[in-house]
Amino acid sequence: MVTGNRRVRNLWMADALKDALKYAAEVVEAAIAAAVRPVKTPIPEAMMYAVRGGKSLRGFLVLEGARLHGVQERIAAPIAGAIEAMHAYSLIHDDLPCMDDDDLRRGKPTVHRKWDEATAVLTGDALQALAFELIMLADITPETKVVLAHMLAVDAGERGMVGGQAADIAAESAAAALTLGEIESLQAKKTGALVEWACAAGPRIAGADEMPMRQYGRALGRAFQIADDILDVTGDAEAVGKAVGKDHAAGKATFVSLLGLDGAKSRAVELVDEACDALDVYREAANTLKAAARFVVQRTH
Amino acid sequence: MVTGNRRVRNLWMADALKDALKYAAEVVEAAIAAAVRPVKTPIPEAMMYAVRGGKSLRGFLVLEGARLHGVQERIAAPIAGAIEAMHAYSLIHDDLPCMDDDDLRRGKPTVHRKWDEATAVLTGDALQALAFELIMLADITPETKVVLAHMLAVDAGERGMVGGQAADIAAESAAAALTLGEIESLQAKKTGALVEWACAAGPRIAGADEMPMRQYGRALGRAFQIADDILDVTGDAEAVGKAVGKDHAAGKATFVSLLGLDGAKSRAVELVDEACDALDVYREAANTLKAAARFVVQRTH
Repeated sequence: MVTGNRRVRNLWMADALKDALKYAAEVVEAAIAAAVRPVKTPIPEAMMYAVRGGKSLRGFLVLEGARLHGVQERIAAPIAGAIEAMHAYSLIHDDLPCMDDDDLRRGKPTVHRKWDEATAVLTGDALQALAFELIMLADITPETKVVLAHMLAVDAGERGMVGGQAADIAAESAAAALTLGEIESLQAKKTGALVEWACAAGPRIAGADEMPMRQYGRALGRAFQIADDILDVTGDAEAVGKAVGKDHAAGKATFVSLLGLDGAKSRAVELVDEACDALDVYREAANTLKAAARFVVQRTH
Repeated sequence: MVTGNRRVRNLWMADALKDALKYAAEVVEAAIAAAVRPVKTPIPEAMMYAVRGGKSLRGFLVLEGARLHGVQERIAAPIAGAIEAMHAYSLIHDDLPCMDDDDLRRGKPTVHRKWDEATAVLTGDALQALAFELIMLADITPETKVVLAHMLAVDAGERGMVGGQAADIAAESAAAALTLGEIESLQAKKTGALVEWACAAGPRIAGADEMPMRQYGRALGRAFQIADDILDVTGDAEAVGKAVGKDHAAGKATFVSLLGLDGAKSRAVELVDEACDALDVYREAANTLKAAARFVVQRTH
């Protein structure tokens, strides 16, 4: 009976998570649409195109972190929009022919395929500016805006996401494959920093302790990246919504090439447990966040 | 004698301006270098490369606007660095093969020619993030940081610089050439907004009236763009430090094609007078700023 109840409960959690993610995507889209006005160029349309259809995991993390600390959704919404605008810009630029040269993203043509390269560069540029604009628009104290914007600038810039992407590109032409430590450090910058930012935003707005959410975010980000490497090997392009097998074919060092498929899977499960444990202080209120962490690993099979 | 004295005085002013611009470039470079740390990728070096060797006009405007209002230079320096980082990013991206496809900028190979396109995209992206980081680092109130960052995000984004650049690209393939009003609106977004931001920053930090500096900046930005169009026709690449004659050769509507060379020159002179008049409230203290406005037109012949 306990097992049965737990299964029902897990199913319910999966549905609740699905709803929460879908809802986060709607909140994010509304927050961004409110700040993007139609002009005579394709940029606003391309901005909304790039934001739509994603998992909105980072926006969801902001909204859940805020909810956990009693921050109203209307206050957290522009912050969720900010992190998703930043994420969408990074995907557009990463997909460019001079970078990963991808034609497919989120199951749709990439921005430079649907429009052209110039539009893709400019749309990414505008989305990065929009991320900072949305923080400044939020109904939070100037002190909090400054901390969030400062952290975001560092996490997105040369010491964060951009630096991680540059190191990733440099690794492709390097003589020696990356070690596990180097991949972890690269990924911590490339994706980890912004996932952690999203997790820390809610408690920061509430003036609460950021540590549990940061620990959760750090473990989640690492699990997420391992899951991505696993999907690159086991997934099919249609389900994943983007090209797969590229890293494997390129002989690139990944968590899978270094740990093996089973090793990578068990490492991801360990990290998910670590992420969930960090949230124990919130008890049942953190169930959706815990389900999100598990979902990250379930994506792999 | 009066004429003679005035000539000596103008020569002195030209030297003082040259020194002030050179000094602004040094302050800007130091402010940016302090926030850029060496990592294992070419990005930090490319960031500094892109910032160096420019006129640093926008950084100079911040420092002068600050000085006029008794704001210490150490306080204004990161703000001057912020606007130059934003400007440098826009030049790197504008020079990309998919945009203006320029090989030469400030007399040196463009970033994508010296390194490659991926490095150019990422270096621009990192410089935009750095602009916001530098504002957050400045020793000013959180309220002022928020206003400066909010204005910068709007002026740099889809409703500002990026929108202007996109409109400029769209105009190239449009059936009808742009009208004077359309060019003015496009240029106001593309370059005017950030020049005005630079002018407004000093008084904003001091809590003083921004209007005189904004009026100066708006007229200066317009004069600057007309001067750029004139240089495209009359300048030589070596002196200008970038390719010239491209707009003219492309049959693009410019201030020169619409007003004629003489018409464009007198419009630029009118705007410089307008810029200088706006600063009368500051009396002699604004002489270097007035010299800067005159310098913009002197560049044309």
